[in-house]
Amino acid sequence: MLRFIRKRTEKVGLAPGTLVHVGEKKADHVRIRVIDYDQENLEERELQSIDECMPYRDKPTVTWINIDGLHDVDVIEKIGKTFNLHPLVLEDIVNTDQRPKMEDYENCIFIISKMLSCDDKEGRLNIEQFSLLLLPNVIISFQERIGDVFEPVRERLRKGKGRIRKMGMDYLMYTLLDAVVDNYFIVLEKIGERIENLEEELIAHPGPETLQAIHHLKRELIFLRKSVWPLREAISALERGELDLIQEKTTVFLRDVYDHTIQVIDTIETYRDMVSGVLDVYLSSISNKMNEVMKVLTIIATIFMPMTFIAGIYGMNFKHMPELETTWGYPVVWLVMIVIGGVMLAYFRKKKWL
Amino acid sequence: MLRFIRKRTEKVGLAPGTLVHVGEKKADHVRIRVIDYDQENLEERELQSIDECMPYRDKPTVTWINIDGLHDVDVIEKIGKTFNLHPLVLEDIVNTDQRPKMEDYENCIFIISKMLSCDDKEGRLNIEQFSLLLLPNVIISFQERIGDVFEPVRERLRKGKGRIRKMGMDYLMYTLLDAVVDNYFIVLEKIGERIENLEEELIAHPGPETLQAIHHLKRELIFLRKSVWPLREAISALERGELDLIQEKTTVFLRDVYDHTIQVIDTIETYRDMVSGVLDVYLSSISNKMNEVMKVLTIIATIFMPMTFIAGIYGMNFKHMPELETTWGYPVVWLVMIVIGGVMLAYFRKKKWL
Amino acid sequence: MLRFIRKRTEKVGLAPGTLVHVGEKKADHVRIRVIDYDQENLEERELQSIDECMPYRDKPTVTWINIDGLHDVDVIEKIGKTFNLHPLVLEDIVNTDQRPKMEDYENCIFIISKMLSCDDKEGRLNIEQFSLLLLPNVIISFQERIGDVFEPVRERLRKGKGRIRKMGMDYLMYTLLDAVVDNYFIVLEKIGERIENLEEELIAHPGPETLQAIHHLKRELIFLRKSVWPLREAISALERGELDLIQEKTTVFLRDVYDHTIQVIDTIETYRDMVSGVLDVYLSSISNKMNEVMKVLTIIATIFMPMTFIAGIYGMNFKHMPELETTWGYPVVWLVMIVIGGVMLAYFRKKKWL
Amino acid sequence: MLRFIRKRTEKVGLAPGTLVHVGEKKADHVRIRVIDYDQENLEERELQSIDECMPYRDKPTVTWINIDGLHDVDVIEKIGKTFNLHPLVLEDIVNTDQRPKMEDYENCIFIISKMLSCDDKEGRLNIEQFSLLLLPNVIISFQERIGDVFEPVRERLRKGKGRIRKMGMDYLMYTLLDAVVDNYFIVLEKIGERIENLEEELIAHPGPETLQAIHHLKRELIFLRKSVWPLREAISALERGELDLIQEKTTVFLRDVYDHTIQVIDTIETYRDMVSGVLDVYLSSISNKMNEVMKVLTIIATIFMPMTFIAGIYGMNFKHMPELETTWGYPVVWLVMIVIGGVMLAYFRKKKWL
Amino acid sequence: MLRFIRKRTEKVGLAPGTLVHVGEKKADHVRIRVIDYDQENLEERELQSIDECMPYRDKPTVTWINIDGLHDVDVIEKIGKTFNLHPLVLEDIVNTDQRPKMEDYENCIFIISKMLSCDDKEGRLNIEQFSLLLLPNVIISFQERIGDVFEPVRERLRKGKGRIRKMGMDYLMYTLLDAVVDNYFIVLEKIGERIENLEEELIAHPGPETLQAIHHLKRELIFLRKSVWPLREAISALERGELDLIQEKTTVFLRDVYDHTIQVIDTIETYRDMVSGVLDVYLSSISNKMNEVMKVLTIIATIFMPMTFIAGIYGMNFKHMPELETTWGYPVVWLVMIVIGGVMLAYFRKKKWL
Repeated sequence: MLRFIRKRTEKVGLAPGTLVHVGEKKADHVRIRVIDYDQENLEERELQSIDECMPYRDKPTVTWINIDGLHDVDVIEKIGKTFNLHPLVLEDIVNTDQRPKMEDYENCIFIISKMLSCDDKEGRLNIEQFSLLLLPNVIISFQERIGDVFEPVRERLRKGKGRIRKMGMDYLMYTLLDAVVDNYFIVLEKIGERIENLEEELIAHPGPETLQAIHHLKRELIFLRKSVWPLREAISALERGELDLIQEKTTVFLRDVYDHTIQVIDTIETYRDMVSGVLDVYLSSISNKMNEVMKVLTIIATIFMPMTFIAGIYGMNFKHMPELETTWGYPVVWLVMIVIGGVMLAYFRKKKWL
Repeated sequence: MLRFIRKRTEKVGLAPGTLVHVGEKKADHVRIRVIDYDQENLEERELQSIDECMPYRDKPTVTWINIDGLHDVDVIEKIGKTFNLHPLVLEDIVNTDQRPKMEDYENCIFIISKMLSCDDKEGRLNIEQFSLLLLPNVIISFQERIGDVFEPVRERLRKGKGRIRKMGMDYLMYTLLDAVVDNYFIVLEKIGERIENLEEELIAHPGPETLQAIHHLKRELIFLRKSVWPLREAISALERGELDLIQEKTTVFLRDVYDHTIQVIDTIETYRDMVSGVLDVYLSSISNKMNEVMKVLTIIATIFMPMTFIAGIYGMNFKHMPELETTWGYPVVWLVMIVIGGVMLAYFRKKKWL
Repeated sequence: MLRFIRKRTEKVGLAPGTLVHVGEKKADHVRIRVIDYDQENLEERELQSIDECMPYRDKPTVTWINIDGLHDVDVIEKIGKTFNLHPLVLEDIVNTDQRPKMEDYENCIFIISKMLSCDDKEGRLNIEQFSLLLLPNVIISFQERIGDVFEPVRERLRKGKGRIRKMGMDYLMYTLLDAVVDNYFIVLEKIGERIENLEEELIAHPGPETLQAIHHLKRELIFLRKSVWPLREAISALERGELDLIQEKTTVFLRDVYDHTIQVIDTIETYRDMVSGVLDVYLSSISNKMNEVMKVLTIIATIFMPMTFIAGIYGMNFKHMPELETTWGYPVVWLVMIVIGGVMLAYFRKKKWL
Repeated sequence: MLRFIRKRTEKVGLAPGTLVHVGEKKADHVRIRVIDYDQENLEERELQSIDECMPYRDKPTVTWINIDGLHDVDVIEKIGKTFNLHPLVLEDIVNTDQRPKMEDYENCIFIISKMLSCDDKEGRLNIEQFSLLLLPNVIISFQERIGDVFEPVRERLRKGKGRIRKMGMDYLMYTLLDAVVDNYFIVLEKIGERIENLEEELIAHPGPETLQAIHHLKRELIFLRKSVWPLREAISALERGELDLIQEKTTVFLRDVYDHTIQVIDTIETYRDMVSGVLDVYLSSISNKMNEVMKVLTIIATIFMPMTFIAGIYGMNFKHMPELETTWGYPVVWLVMIVIGGVMLAYFRKKKWL
Repeated sequence: MLRFIRKRTEKVGLAPGTLVHVGEKKADHVRIRVIDYDQENLEERELQSIDECMPYRDKPTVTWINIDGLHDVDVIEKIGKTFNLHPLVLEDIVNTDQRPKMEDYENCIFIISKMLSCDDKEGRLNIEQFSLLLLPNVIISFQERIGDVFEPVRERLRKGKGRIRKMGMDYLMYTLLDAVVDNYFIVLEKIGERIENLEEELIAHPGPETLQAIHHLKRELIFLRKSVWPLREAISALERGELDLIQEKTTVFLRDVYDHTIQVIDTIETYRDMVSGVLDVYLSSISNKMNEVMKVLTIIATIFMPMTFIAGIYGMNFKHMPELETTWGYPVVWLVMIVIGGVMLAYFRKKKWL
């Protein structure tokens, strides 16, 4: 799980603004896609080089430039120059280790959030950094790998239905953030299913691997929380921020995303409580099992030790043991032993051990 | 219990304001009831279609439209058009997964809260979303199913006694919220009884099913808390909000509901502490039982092992064992063994194990 | 302990301001006592009916009306009419389930607090609601039962010594609150003694009833905390409130009560920590005992099993067992067994098990 | 430890400002010492009676009156009259149960803090109340017993070196508070040593008395925290308070004391975490020991039970047991038993139990 | 670990501003290095005596004076005189026990932070105090020992590339703080590796030394947190402080350091949660092992006790035991015993103990 805490060591000592990609290289090459639209028209194309986005900079239409793959720092640097970005913004984009935040620069708004996904097979949680730059007329989004949660947004843009083409660039930003946060619910649902499975497993056949699973889940929830919690603050700042680039009428939509973020956080906290509960049940099920094991041992030992002792008595080789000579000795001993066993059993039944 | 975290997955990717009912369908058909009153008159009827509520919109009397059943999004959409509601309001109404909140829109106040009930048989906690729209002269309430806690309110309206018919629409809103919060006390009392039963069970005959019950109760309290906690904030916002639709003189009543909400939260926290205490007692009762089991085993083993050993000694077949020949050998061995047993018993009594 | 969470169910659905006594009936009849004083004179009498307090309403002297017994809602209602009180104030007075609070109404200040007492025999904690109404020139106090902590205050009033007769009605209010809070120290001291007793019991002879006592104490501290914590806020509001009915020079005395409340809360928190500590010690004493039991078993078993085995060997009936024929066989076997026992004992001593 | 929560019961019901000494009488008689100085001269004397401090009241020099022993309330009362103090100030001085605080009265600043010391032999923590009154030109300090941490301050005053004689009365106040807080570090260091000793003891020979020591230490840290935590707030209020009696240039020194207080609190929190850690280690060392005990028992039982069983088999007295007749029977049985024992040992070695 | 809480005892009672080095002497002699630069030129030299830095005081270039070794208080005192520093600043510099803070003095900004390093062999965490004085045109840094994390900064200064030579003295301060905080990531990574190793060890072969390691790690995280947490506040104060010595354009860089500090704190909290999780797994692995041990014991005892009992029966010496005479007695007894053993094994298999 420590893959989440990525190696920043190589960056230490460099000047601020030096671009070094921190994190795994998740894409083969950098892919640049542009969607440029206003209420009437929409143009969608894939750029070969970053220089091609130059003309969009000063166009009055809304332009959404999406970049998949952050490992090529040259591309990022060029974007920085083209759009005149602060070096620290560029640094944060390639450093995929950031916590979600919203920063208000002179000429742009910069948002970092995390995109989550679950491997379907193993249920492993993947966290990918998603950065968003809001410039006048241009939105630039940065993703670590190809494949995202924005396909429905693109579809809505293409169809031109609804509000999305009429409202401005800040509404697009909202839509993207909303898509990211909506996606958290899918991840949460998968985790919810894993908790349910865990609980069933706990009742059916708990074992050390159950503990491993609880432990694993607990840790994923820690990381999930770490990824979502600061986003709440960032979105709240966006909503209240009286930022020039965000229109009054978009604020109500941002409040909605904010609500969703709080719901996500609430659910994570609930899951944490639930997993803690599962751990408690697991631990006391261990104790219960131990109790059961000990009861079996105690019952067996308590019944057979006295009986074996009696058998031992009459196995002694003393010359003068009058009982040995009698004919009724053997059956009487049997009787005594059965009585002892019966008394013990009754005692255990009374104690509810049986 | 995961039914509380309802499937939102199908909603992901849709435009904001798209109405999709999230949650179980709890009612067969949508029922629309209207109570329209002023100080002198009261009219109560059940509408066949939502279009019939059109005339009430601009009437100066207070109109309370109650809608049971949220699965038919068309109805909701029509209401939205009739009363000119923001799409996000409609979306939140049909999405029964919301956390309680109060939102102040331009033309209306929108309140979401949760209505609780306990199945009498199983003691299962049911949570139902209750949304309230406060428009000038009209209150619209949305419930997931038929059957609610407002019958006494209706009765008071019909009888026309007391303050309720004299004061405005905001007082009706207060009355409804008060009824919802008052209902929490009934649910809390039932949970309180379950805690009491649990404690009695714990003393009488604790078992793994006790743990299950504790676990279950704990989780219900988590969900209860999640449902009530944000309501406190919402009502506080209503009270302090200096909202146009709420009169000064209603504020003091809202403060009363606020107090009740805090009492509910206090009680939930107290119950959580109590359930934790019950868990502690349960866990240490397991340890105590284990101790008892081990004591029985240890006492039996400690008494019979030495005695069996002695019997074993004189069961050896050595030619030269002078004791075997004596007549007093056998009774002396018995004596020795009885002494050993007695010493052991005295030792255990001294140790307070018996 | 659930008696603390009283039945409110019967109240649900009634109009706000409907007076229903919530709680046990703790007094046989309602007793009304009046103390009316200024710097020179003091009149003290017991009223037969609430109507008799009418004349005191507009007298410039300070009048303290004390009402014991809240079950007769007619009396409360009459007081409400006489002094023109808000219906919610009356409702809160008879509803003995309130959390401590201070409310500033137009014509009065309304304070709710809790009066605590400990049954001397069982050490059971009793909580009684004490409400205080501060009107111009009149203070009305409401108690659930006859018998209170204000006798010293009355004595001071009668003697006319000190500040109390010179300063106004707000100083009387302070004195009553101070008496209530001072009383908490007595209750805390008794609880402190119970904790001390618990600790001694824990060292002398811990048992399942110790756990019950810890559990009981823990729960009482939860309720105590719930009763005192909000009072802090209420008194702080009184002190800072810039309320017309409270003079500047009384504020410094209210700050003193506030300090005492914080001290009470501090002590409750400390007690909670102490009781948690006692629980920890109890739980690990169970583990320690188990360890001891297991050690006894292990020592006995480890010594006698090998020896019994050897005895078993020479109890076999093989024809050809040369040792059996020798004269030294028997003593040698004894020697071997003694050596084995000695080695085991030395091993256990080395391991510090003995 | 409950001595910390001193008996306030006798005070209950008295008028505010009634002087009753709460706490142990720690000094035989009241000792009054005066140091009166300006930049040039210093006078130091011990007063026989409190009346003698009258002349210092209006002298422009700085006068430090130190009073050891609070049990004689007459002395305190006289001081109150001489310097015109509020009755609540006097009450708080003799009530040694106060939490640290700073109060700004019209004519004086009143500070309460706690002086700590550790008995060297037993390591018992002593807490003594130290009150400080800052009047124009006069500082009055109150201690419960003779013997304090201010000797170095007096020495510096006498020598007249450094800042202390040049700066005013507020700097003296700072110096005294600094001495009190500095002293906390000594106490903390002793507690630190005790924690270290505990850890060594835990590794060398843990036992129930270790638990007692942990428990004791934990409780002392609770009380320590309770004594220091509010002081932080009090000093912060002094620093920020814009109080007339405190000069601008002293503020930077007060900030320094404030920093030290935070360091003390930090260290206490760290110690609490450390003691919790020690408790965890202790508890799991009990479990580990139990494991070890059980392993010994299991190994012995597992090896000898099968072997004893075999010996039992050939101790039976059946007529027809062919093995008994053979000459190789006896050695073969030995062999079998040795093989069984060896297999068991190998199994345990594989399981890492040996 | 208590080395972190260094001996301050010797300092107690001294006047404030008295310079006493608190902490270990970590360097042999004091080394003073100066880097003096503006955009064009850079001079780097090692001073023999502190007097030589006099000329740099009023030079308009940026001068960075770095002092390694704090044990020689004379040097510190001379610096104090040269640059006219407040005595409390000097005291805090030599007292290596400070918590990180930022203080704004009239003529300077004073920052204290902690420099961390990990011994590579033992993984022991070292904490060193790093103080920074920001005067007009001069930065003075104080370190406890030779060897620091600033070599890359010096390199960047020498090369004169990038922003560092162009921007002022406040940018240098930022660069130094950034280097310190960046270094935390290296330490965190090493700790992360140790946690990973611990987890592997926990699965492979947990033992009491694992517990020691967990405990050790937990404590280091406590100290780490204590060292970093207040730095966050200090940097935030720098950023928001509207301090004269810090230019507007440097603020955005300080916000970046602030973000990094929060990330460090987040990671520490995550590590703490992770170590707690590891402890939980360790503790329940002990319980699991105990369970396993008990199962082995119970299985062996449950199988062999009944069988040994039967063998004991037929070892009795009664005259009249008809079974003994029969030829089939012996094989039947064997059969019975095998059946008993088989039934037991089947029972255990059913219970999933095998």
